[in-house]
Amino acid sequence: MEKVSLPKGTRDFGPAQMAKRQFIFDSIRKVFQRYGFQPLETPAMENLSTLTGKYGEEGDQLLFKILNSGDYLKDVDSVKLATKDSRLITNDISEKGLRYDLTVPFARYVVTNRHEITFPFKRYQIQPVWRADRPQKGRYREFYQCDADVVGTDSLVCEAEIILMIKDAFKILGINDYIVKINHRGILSGLAEILNASAKEGSLFVAIDKLDKIGEEKVKEELRARGFDGDLSSLFETLNFKGNTKQKIDFLGQKFTSSEKGKKGLSDLTEVLSLLAGFGATDDHVEFDVALARGLSYYTGCIFEVKIGNVSIGSVSGGGRYDNLTAVFDAKEKSSGVGFSFGIDRLYDAMEELNIFPKDARASSTVLVAHLDEQSFRHSLKIVQGLRENEISCEVYPEPAKVKKQLEYADKKKIPFVVVIGSEEIRTETVTLKKMETGNQLTLSFPELVTAMQLYK
Amino acid sequence: MEKVSLPKGTRDFGPAQMAKRQFIFDSIRKVFQRYGFQPLETPAMENLSTLTGKYGEEGDQLLFKILNSGDYLKDVDSVKLATKDSRLITNDISEKGLRYDLTVPFARYVVTNRHEITFPFKRYQIQPVWRADRPQKGRYREFYQCDADVVGTDSLVCEAEIILMIKDAFKILGINDYIVKINHRGILSGLAEILNASAKEGSLFVAIDKLDKIGEEKVKEELRARGFDGDLSSLFETLNFKGNTKQKIDFLGQKFTSSEKGKKGLSDLTEVLSLLAGFGATDDHVEFDVALARGLSYYTGCIFEVKIGNVSIGSVSGGGRYDNLTAVFDAKEKSSGVGFSFGIDRLYDAMEELNIFPKDARASSTVLVAHLDEQSFRHSLKIVQGLRENEISCEVYPEPAKVKKQLEYADKKKIPFVVVIGSEEIRTETVTLKKMETGNQLTLSFPELVTAMQLYK
Repeated sequence: MEKVSLPKGTRDFGPAQMAKRQFIFDSIRKVFQRYGFQPLETPAMENLSTLTGKYGEEGDQLLFKILNSGDYLKDVDSVKLATKDSRLITNDISEKGLRYDLTVPFARYVVTNRHEITFPFKRYQIQPVWRADRPQKGRYREFYQCDADVVGTDSLVCEAEIILMIKDAFKILGINDYIVKINHRGILSGLAEILNASAKEGSLFVAIDKLDKIGEEKVKEELRARGFDGDLSSLFETLNFKGNTKQKIDFLGQKFTSSEKGKKGLSDLTEVLSLLAGFGATDDHVEFDVALARGLSYYTGCIFEVKIGNVSIGSVSGGGRYDNLTAVFDAKEKSSGVGFSFGIDRLYDAMEELNIFPKDARASSTVLVAHLDEQSFRHSLKIVQGLRENEISCEVYPEPAKVKKQLEYADKKKIPFVVVIGSEEIRTETVTLKKMETGNQLTLSFPELVTAMQLYK
Repeated sequence: MEKVSLPKGTRDFGPAQMAKRQFIFDSIRKVFQRYGFQPLETPAMENLSTLTGKYGEEGDQLLFKILNSGDYLKDVDSVKLATKDSRLITNDISEKGLRYDLTVPFARYVVTNRHEITFPFKRYQIQPVWRADRPQKGRYREFYQCDADVVGTDSLVCEAEIILMIKDAFKILGINDYIVKINHRGILSGLAEILNASAKEGSLFVAIDKLDKIGEEKVKEELRARGFDGDLSSLFETLNFKGNTKQKIDFLGQKFTSSEKGKKGLSDLTEVLSLLAGFGATDDHVEFDVALARGLSYYTGCIFEVKIGNVSIGSVSGGGRYDNLTAVFDAKEKSSGVGFSFGIDRLYDAMEELNIFPKDARASSTVLVAHLDEQSFRHSLKIVQGLRENEISCEVYPEPAKVKKQLEYADKKKIPFVVVIGSEEIRTETVTLKKMETGNQLTLSFPELVTAMQLYK
């Protein structure tokens, strides 16, 4: 047998996984649509000129590049080729790459369609992305992203609605133990100002973002190693301040008396919480976390991260506001936006770990119709089709076989109900319904069968 | 501004198109699931060893190949590289390709998972495929395929159910004028036997498959050019025979007295029609077409093709039975299967041409909540959230703005209803509901609004 295998870091999703994944996708899509977000799909391939330079040098290395079609080597300079320097040659033999995320294609879409789009534009996008990363547990070379963004408005209603959408999605998914961490880029800048370290903001944020994971002493070590030699006590007094959101805001208000950025951060957060109350929602699950930085220089306003409690990889969603989505393509065009993303693989793993997928997130039929002989096989076809006409997912075992074999088939495929048809059922115009989980049997008329299955499906 | 464009032959799908495409996908998925088919997804990338040699030499040329990561030229033989012969080098610098169809990945999945799969295995798969074809009207380099296959049974119930699924899908999609053409590879072989041309079956089928398009005289010319120098009159007497399915079967029965393959073809077709009747379905829309060949040596039993009437590109679906799905990977493993595929782009174009997409196949919110001032903006948040709690898709214009601007936003986004909130509405605890299409306005309580919108959504 020819050896067949999957490329490293890629996966098949068989029926059982697909049913659970579809449950997640459908739930999130439902929430996005309920909040007025519209679907978008972009091609898997983009021109390399669109992709390169957007993800840093490391990101460029992780792009999957597509070999040009036809005689791609013909026009490559022979001397250049003889160097065997892959980096020199790549642009000559490849002009397309696979998308690395959904943000850059979205920005490209907005720029190329800006005259047709009605702003504010609310879009969601659920598609796979590809990264030539070293595969490891929980890190794949192909994985889905699930993004929602609004561009073309500064309104903090969008931030409040992101929190509401996360709450709605988790309610549908059955996730009860989680925290939506929120912070603001301005507050981080305020902290940097207090340290007189505005020029080194980036290093500061990267270090304090690790507070959760490595603890205060290690963060202090890292900061000193990065050249923060001043007094760190005021910084850690702030990072360690315990209190509810209002108390934290009051405390920081005293610190930020001379930081315009810090004050803007606090007033934005206050307004988001006020809008949340305006929507009639509580701030349950919402936590203001001064140390949250998400390591990205990209964000300019509120930032979010969502963690699920009691699972190994808790961080399943994140996002924030940015002022420069389309600036990478058009410096004149500054469209403020805010967005967030669900990590589908992590959500899936968390829900498996918590064992909270609903029982009916299965890909099998609701009913198998089994038969005892040729005559009952023929008779069963009408039963099968009658159930389907009532939108009940069902199948007939497609060839004459022992009932035992047919029941095994239902059992292996996790089909919850089997209808058995024999000569007695044909004579009395009934069916025998067997519930696989319990083995319980009932004799029913066809209309009774339909009613029972409609309650279940 | 940096010039940004899409790669040739690829497309974005914006909200309006996505809504219609999702309507098609959801409808077909619903039908597949109703018939007990289970979802499968495979990765976009497969090893080139899995893909090459499966689609003929031309197909191999049309595979999109992915450049190996890292320093891919390092180990390439310098002498070989100096030839600049692209064909010689490709295998050294590329080991993965994008999937070309869904059939080969499915076969690969079945072979690698055969010990876990319960047969008969009914799977559907809706994913994009990529072909480095020359782009032209209606032909893209990235497009979705939508396949359903059963492997592991010879039962003709599967063939009958394919016809039923096509009928069900078209009913949901609102397509009434169509023909499901059916033929059988054995009948085509029987025709070849009559001509004493069994050795040249392939050429014969390719030629007569064009009868529809180029007419009898041109087909005769092509056959003579291909070396069919015998008497073609009996062949065309058969091809031109007019009658219903039963009459055609009777007529061919007399021709095929000495062709075992031909007789098997007729008895299979007869059984498929009998099973269809057993399911309680008519053979409306089903037409036995002796000339249907689908140009593929691949099929071994029944073959199907679906044409929609009164549109420019009518052929939107096709398929058939094959005896050797997994043989390309494992010669010992012969799993009979039968499958078919919907062409999503063609279905979309046909439905646009017929103007039959339902009105609610739109991606917009059902309701925009508009406001007159800061106070009514705050008040509107509770209305918005109340509608969402009732699963009504809605949005609030996110910043204070003139009502005219808010109504224009709703109009451009094709949001059918606008709720206007002002001081009078706040005082009387009502809302003003405006239907955008007619301009009609109603004053309603919130519960009345919910009821009205639930009827509409």
